[in-house]
Amino acid sequence: MINKLVSKIKKMGAPVVVGLDPMLNYVPEFVQKKAFEEYGETLEGAAEAIWQFNKAIVDQIYDIVPAVKPQIAMYEQFGVPGVAAYKKTVDYCKSKDLVVIGDVKRGDIGSTSAAYAVGHLGKVTVGSKKITAFDEDFATVNPYLGTDGIKPFVDVCKEEKKGIFVLVKTSNPSSGEFQDRLIDGRPLYELVGEKVAEWGADAMGDEYSYVGCVVGATYPKMGEILRKVMPKSYILVPGYGAQGGTAASLRPYFNEDGLGAIVNSSRGIIAAYKQEAYSKFGPEHFAEASRAAAEAMIADIASIF
Amino acid sequence: MINKLVSKIKKMGAPVVVGLDPMLNYVPEFVQKKAFEEYGETLEGAAEAIWQFNKAIVDQIYDIVPAVKPQIAMYEQFGVPGVAAYKKTVDYCKSKDLVVIGDVKRGDIGSTSAAYAVGHLGKVTVGSKKITAFDEDFATVNPYLGTDGIKPFVDVCKEEKKGIFVLVKTSNPSSGEFQDRLIDGRPLYELVGEKVAEWGADAMGDEYSYVGCVVGATYPKMGEILRKVMPKSYILVPGYGAQGGTAASLRPYFNEDGLGAIVNSSRGIIAAYKQEAYSKFGPEHFAEASRAAAEAMIADIASIF
Repeated sequence: MINKLVSKIKKMGAPVVVGLDPMLNYVPEFVQKKAFEEYGETLEGAAEAIWQFNKAIVDQIYDIVPAVKPQIAMYEQFGVPGVAAYKKTVDYCKSKDLVVIGDVKRGDIGSTSAAYAVGHLGKVTVGSKKITAFDEDFATVNPYLGTDGIKPFVDVCKEEKKGIFVLVKTSNPSSGEFQDRLIDGRPLYELVGEKVAEWGADAMGDEYSYVGCVVGATYPKMGEILRKVMPKSYILVPGYGAQGGTAASLRPYFNEDGLGAIVNSSRGIIAAYKQEAYSKFGPEHFAEASRAAAEAMIADIASIF
Repeated sequence: MINKLVSKIKKMGAPVVVGLDPMLNYVPEFVQKKAFEEYGETLEGAAEAIWQFNKAIVDQIYDIVPAVKPQIAMYEQFGVPGVAAYKKTVDYCKSKDLVVIGDVKRGDIGSTSAAYAVGHLGKVTVGSKKITAFDEDFATVNPYLGTDGIKPFVDVCKEEKKGIFVLVKTSNPSSGEFQDRLIDGRPLYELVGEKVAEWGADAMGDEYSYVGCVVGATYPKMGEILRKVMPKSYILVPGYGAQGGTAASLRPYFNEDGLGAIVNSSRGIIAAYKQEAYSKFGPEHFAEASRAAAEAMIADIASIF
């Protein structure tokens, strides 16, 4: 799957992933209204609203971006119907040949991580059958529990040729509280980065490993160091746009060949119609506004090479 | 909810939580067979099997243990039907007045953690309505992203009088890889423990905080230190039994008054019928075997006081 991701990025000239993180207040009034008319102001109604919102955006962007990253929290907050909308979104994106990065940030002790790994990336055994459950292409994973929380994911990745992105340095303001603390003179995130390189060493695609990492756009100096620590790991870079990261600051995350990183934007694209710059589209053309914002982001990032 | 947990622990004399982590191979053949006959060897069939398994066990233990801890990974691996079985289990346990600790180990940047917090512990806004989604009493949370990943959970806990258990030192073999690394001469888990005390300081129940922590039974010396670092935080202690922790090693996790900790056992109770000691029950009386194992665990832990 890392090979597919790299090849799509090259072909489209777009190291960009669209975060499908639909807060209900991003969804235009008329979409919500229609969903509530059908299902009421219920979890089912909310799930229908975000699904219709997603679908319209996906239809507008699938031919210009290589990947999407649905954030499962935004679905899980609507309970079981929300999780069903997540699954529907994953399946629809895959049917449009988008690479799907499930932003699930799971991680637990060994046997439990194994359950997450089969549920999200692999196949679960039921009687004599092996069945896919959520079936994303990639998943994000939390490293706090160490190697035996990560290993089951890597095993499934090797079996299924799928991938993970391990949280190394997150984009949020208080990420430094633990991640930046010095251990033998080096920050924790560097040690995690070294482990990522180690975990991914024997799970290689053609050029890059099945094991990537997450490094926030808001910390470019750290990106530069981490790029060297994990030369074979794709870096998933959140924090561009809404969280304050700019295109110029992104260069250090990439390798010389312009590969090695994929930059996420969520709100900046899916809620573009709410921005001054795209207000001409109006709420009724929210999905076209998303396409325009994606095109602008692709051009912005292309400008750094 | 922490007050209810403490009061139930006192009343039952049982600082014990049963982990509802139903691997499909724990579920007796006849339960699986029945579910597969109805739903086929599908995700729905697996979900039905684990739900029936849980229900029978809950019916046998709800009057002797104060709390249960369903591990969501074991449900999520069966996709949307699995997550529905998780929700059904949560609701059923609450109807039996059990305190429900959702072992979800969620954690993300601020706005995303807020979605997890409302989805699991609070109410999500849909149009003019505020609706509960998963509605557990407590959730476990991963601290790697720092304060702004935790704060949204604490806010919801205060609003709803619910609680969280933050991962401090986990029970798995490689937990030390990052958690034990020294920062200014002290291990990372101690710094996380200090933060837990800080996060919980203004979210107090009668005697204990809404913000508890997870410290594995497999590291009693660390438990002793962490007990002092977080005097007002309940400690959720996994790793008893199957993972190697013994009752004698648990004393340091408790305060002088015998409160302050709650010990989890999963496989040791829910799959008791597979153990030599409880084999007389046979698979058909698996739930009675679970009750006997829970009684033995309660007695074992009572013996340390």
